[in-house]
Amino acid sequence: MIKKNSPIPIYYQLEELIKELIEKGELKPGDSIPAEREYAEKYQISRMTVRQAFTQLVNDGYLHRIQGKGTFVADRKIEQPLQGLTSFTEDMKARGLKPGNQLIHFEIIPATSQIATQLAIQEYGPVYEIKRIRLADDVPMALETNYISANLIKGLTEQIVNQSLYAHIEGQLGLLIDHASQVIESSIANQIEAQYLKIKKGTPVMLIQRNTYLQDGTPVEFVKSAYRADRYKFMIQMKR
Amino acid sequence: MIKKNSPIPIYYQLEELIKELIEKGELKPGDSIPAEREYAEKYQISRMTVRQAFTQLVNDGYLHRIQGKGTFVADRKIEQPLQGLTSFTEDMKARGLKPGNQLIHFEIIPATSQIATQLAIQEYGPVYEIKRIRLADDVPMALETNYISANLIKGLTEQIVNQSLYAHIEGQLGLLIDHASQVIESSIANQIEAQYLKIKKGTPVMLIQRNTYLQDGTPVEFVKSAYRADRYKFMIQMKR
Repeated sequence: MIKKNSPIPIYYQLEELIKELIEKGELKPGDSIPAEREYAEKYQISRMTVRQAFTQLVNDGYLHRIQGKGTFVADRKIEQPLQGLTSFTEDMKARGLKPGNQLIHFEIIPATSQIATQLAIQEYGPVYEIKRIRLADDVPMALETNYISANLIKGLTEQIVNQSLYAHIEGQLGLLIDHASQVIESSIANQIEAQYLKIKKGTPVMLIQRNTYLQDGTPVEFVKSAYRADRYKFMIQMKR
Repeated sequence: MIKKNSPIPIYYQLEELIKELIEKGELKPGDSIPAEREYAEKYQISRMTVRQAFTQLVNDGYLHRIQGKGTFVADRKIEQPLQGLTSFTEDMKARGLKPGNQLIHFEIIPATSQIATQLAIQEYGPVYEIKRIRLADDVPMALETNYISANLIKGLTEQIVNQSLYAHIEGQLGLLIDHASQVIESSIANQIEAQYLKIKKGTPVMLIQRNTYLQDGTPVEFVKSAYRADRYKFMIQMKR
């Protein structure tokens, strides 16, 4: 119900109303949404107001627009638990999605002072810089850049990286990945992120910075990722 | 160093360079940043490129612009740990900031079906709808809407809410808040959020949805918040 005399703006009421239909499953992923005009007529509100609600729902990942076709209910966001240190490959497999990598950059570079600090190595020490698009069922989900000390993890190849890095480190090298600290921030996609993730520049992304450590405390990787905010959300259980 | 023949775009290199100066402490919060023109001349790059780097750094919360005055290093983001269930008031006190509330809405409403589901009560059952701006040292940090069953937590007043809700529930009512589940998403500020948080519409926000439970599993609150992404980041430790 849209209440015209409520202090809550009408576009926000409409937004909540559509969200509720999606959350209840009355509107399902892929369903087309009635045109702005129809909502405007049904609730006797302006098309501008309907457009404002739609835009917000697109930004929040509930709807997506296809040029010339209309507005549709988006796929549900992937819920990523923040407990337990798992790799992207492991995560995707666990939820029945096909993990994929598209390697766009693989090089040994001299560590900048930031990277050296994060990896606890000498400045200019050799590090692998690995930039990958992470895909789930062939859809780009995240743009990830890993920095790994080339003195610690020797002999990485593009092929290894195209499989699973964690499987290699643990299975092949026998090193025990133990814990990580992660920082989560919100931003909007820059040109590079937009291009690789196939989203519009200026749409929201979640930035994740991860420092991963071996059992003895040695930093094993430093990772910066940008996740599509329209496809991803993070979950956590907290204890008082 | 800006490398012109690198595959990494120049604006991105400049962005990383400025970030590093901030992270190393060579540029401090409040410091003014050299003008676009100066960077352009120093590195022999276009002002457009410098502007692009600045815009991204503003979006990521490293810099902020003051109309007619220039561009400055922003205050550091507040690092909010995701372990341990704490209230906003407790969090701010723990980091030596003065917590503040600005109550903008306080009403008993009939539960919508979404709210009823979250609180495990009957649809149309009475719930407090409490909308507050949360402040740290008088700066707006988050816009928070709490829904609380009025049959469970009786006799809430504006005054109680202006103090600490958790202190009231635990201290006065003797109920034990036990755990919560939290969902973290990234979006961009809508008109209401922008207005109350004093940020521009379209700048990034972090959306947090929290379900809090008592020891016996009874839902005690359902909270939706929008945090300023330029002032907040979330941290978590993860174990393999």
